[in-house]
Amino acid sequence: MLHVVIMAGGSGTRFWPASRRMRPKQLLSLVADRTLLATTVDRVRPLAPPERIWVVTSEALAEATRDCLPSIPDDRVLGEPVGRDTAACVGWAADVVSRDDPDAVCLVLPADHVIADEHRFRTSMEVGVAWVEAHGGLLTFGIRPTRPETGFGYLRVGDARGGRDGLTVHELDRFVEKPDEATARSYLEDGSYLWNSGMFAWRAADLRSEIARQLPLLAAGLDRIAAAGAEAGRDVLEKVYPTLPKTSVDYGIMEGAARRWTLPVDFGWSDVGSWPALGELLAAGPSGVRTRGRVVALDASDCIVVGDRVTVAAVGIRDLVVVATPDAVLVVPVADAQRVREVVSALEDLGWDEVL
Amino acid sequence: MLHVVIMAGGSGTRFWPASRRMRPKQLLSLVADRTLLATTVDRVRPLAPPERIWVVTSEALAEATRDCLPSIPDDRVLGEPVGRDTAACVGWAADVVSRDDPDAVCLVLPADHVIADEHRFRTSMEVGVAWVEAHGGLLTFGIRPTRPETGFGYLRVGDARGGRDGLTVHELDRFVEKPDEATARSYLEDGSYLWNSGMFAWRAADLRSEIARQLPLLAAGLDRIAAAGAEAGRDVLEKVYPTLPKTSVDYGIMEGAARRWTLPVDFGWSDVGSWPALGELLAAGPSGVRTRGRVVALDASDCIVVGDRVTVAAVGIRDLVVVATPDAVLVVPVADAQRVREVVSALEDLGWDEVL
Repeated sequence: MLHVVIMAGGSGTRFWPASRRMRPKQLLSLVADRTLLATTVDRVRPLAPPERIWVVTSEALAEATRDCLPSIPDDRVLGEPVGRDTAACVGWAADVVSRDDPDAVCLVLPADHVIADEHRFRTSMEVGVAWVEAHGGLLTFGIRPTRPETGFGYLRVGDARGGRDGLTVHELDRFVEKPDEATARSYLEDGSYLWNSGMFAWRAADLRSEIARQLPLLAAGLDRIAAAGAEAGRDVLEKVYPTLPKTSVDYGIMEGAARRWTLPVDFGWSDVGSWPALGELLAAGPSGVRTRGRVVALDASDCIVVGDRVTVAAVGIRDLVVVATPDAVLVVPVADAQRVREVVSALEDLGWDEVL
Repeated sequence: MLHVVIMAGGSGTRFWPASRRMRPKQLLSLVADRTLLATTVDRVRPLAPPERIWVVTSEALAEATRDCLPSIPDDRVLGEPVGRDTAACVGWAADVVSRDDPDAVCLVLPADHVIADEHRFRTSMEVGVAWVEAHGGLLTFGIRPTRPETGFGYLRVGDARGGRDGLTVHELDRFVEKPDEATARSYLEDGSYLWNSGMFAWRAADLRSEIARQLPLLAAGLDRIAAAGAEAGRDVLEKVYPTLPKTSVDYGIMEGAARRWTLPVDFGWSDVGSWPALGELLAAGPSGVRTRGRVVALDASDCIVVGDRVTVAAVGIRDLVVVATPDAVLVVPVADAQRVREVVSALEDLGWDEVL
């Protein structure tokens, strides 16, 4: 049966000061009144009942994550003792899911993306899931690019293999690192490159076979954890998990998989990876000022202004991101918004932990 | 005897969002850890004991003002039922002071200025006070200008009449409205123009004589209030005060006074009239970034950044004022900082009273 595994372990420094260590991006209501995580769960509810929706987060965030998802049984929220990148995460989740359902098919999704066309999203997921159920192998969903984005990795599609509902599964040719602008333009024109979305489908058993074949150390660690069982095994989990090899699904498992697929999809996707990316999801007011919360903008232009429980007055400013929370504020040019990481580093260096 | 009368009725919209209706500029700790009002009281304590220091504020702010000044007897904080400009304020204060001390000499000072050289300040006040004690008339202290400021009114000095300690009392020739830049430059070169500081000295009886002569309606209202006495007279005060003519000391009393003096002074004075004026009082960090509170500035230049119980991260910005409080934030170019008044108007129009 289909199990949805939502990866909700992000630390989300890119949304400081709205995001904090204990309130990362997926637990923020950046776009709507619900958190990104709750919206992700809502979106997949027509695909699986609550007991087959699993959320993997850090142990530190498990309680906040459960609080955010009252409809999901508490034991479906899995807390990693430490983050060991996505290969360990999906491997562990596959084992936990298989304990209930040895024939489980996993649909693995990030917790913090925004999707405009939910119906099209679910159809796409169903096509991918049905493919791996029927054919095995590991499938990654690829987003049809809409701009020459240099901030994402890409997938190169191979031969078409089949599909339905206007969707065609391809062999996955290879993963491609983030390109420069000229290369990104060529990818856009070429048509055979997709954005790497971090959404996957596979039978749990097929994933574990590939881990066993390609990452024997990871497989051995996961076996030890699985052998210890669910309840009594917490000690083993906490002992073994930190020793698991750190690698990503993409490079650690997908790239070397014997049978690997990609399904090109298009349903109005955003990974909401930065304040400017969020800005694109907010309605633009006069002069391109995009706001969330209580904002007074006078002669401001091309700004993103967010008041999180704070009233913000933006007067005569342009091309700025302004984000205000009750205890911390960020002001940075839109073009430099990625420097929020430097701010978080500086705050760490200063020891100002109360705003981290 | 000398009584110091501190006028603390300002509403201070120019320091929004730090200043609010119930926490105007004089009750803010803008520069030091003490409020501007408490600092003003500290500054005059060597001139008069607490029972001869009077603070006139609005009735609405009387309690907060008393809380801010534990060393001043509660009955020395006078609450105006409504603001009726400075002529009514100093007239009422003269009457209240005279009830205790018919021979009172009043030194009238704003509550919200910053003065660098306190010793020189006190010497200057003593010279002015001694002059009116000896010669009568109304004296205004004039600040020797240090730049061609267009934001202040000016005083034109007349003939020198005497003095001591390197200070010379002059006849006051006339008040001059805020000049344009060219005129301000000519005033600076001319040397006979001073900034109008709003600091005065007079015998209480001399002030009341001038009010009686020039503003008979004001005098009549003040007489009714005085006749009603201190305690039982609160009802009369609340009934009559709102009917008093609204005019300033400068134009209503000083300009037409029979004997009027000015004492040119120079003790590192700022009226701290705007965020940029405050900025000049803050130490400049690298690239001209002036900060107060917890601020992380990365590649910012020529900014004024104030974090009032809020951590502010300013990245790659220039020529901006950023002021953050727990419930409201202002971002505006330094050159447009006076537009904070428009923000306050906009908030009033929106009915967002909780941040006013």
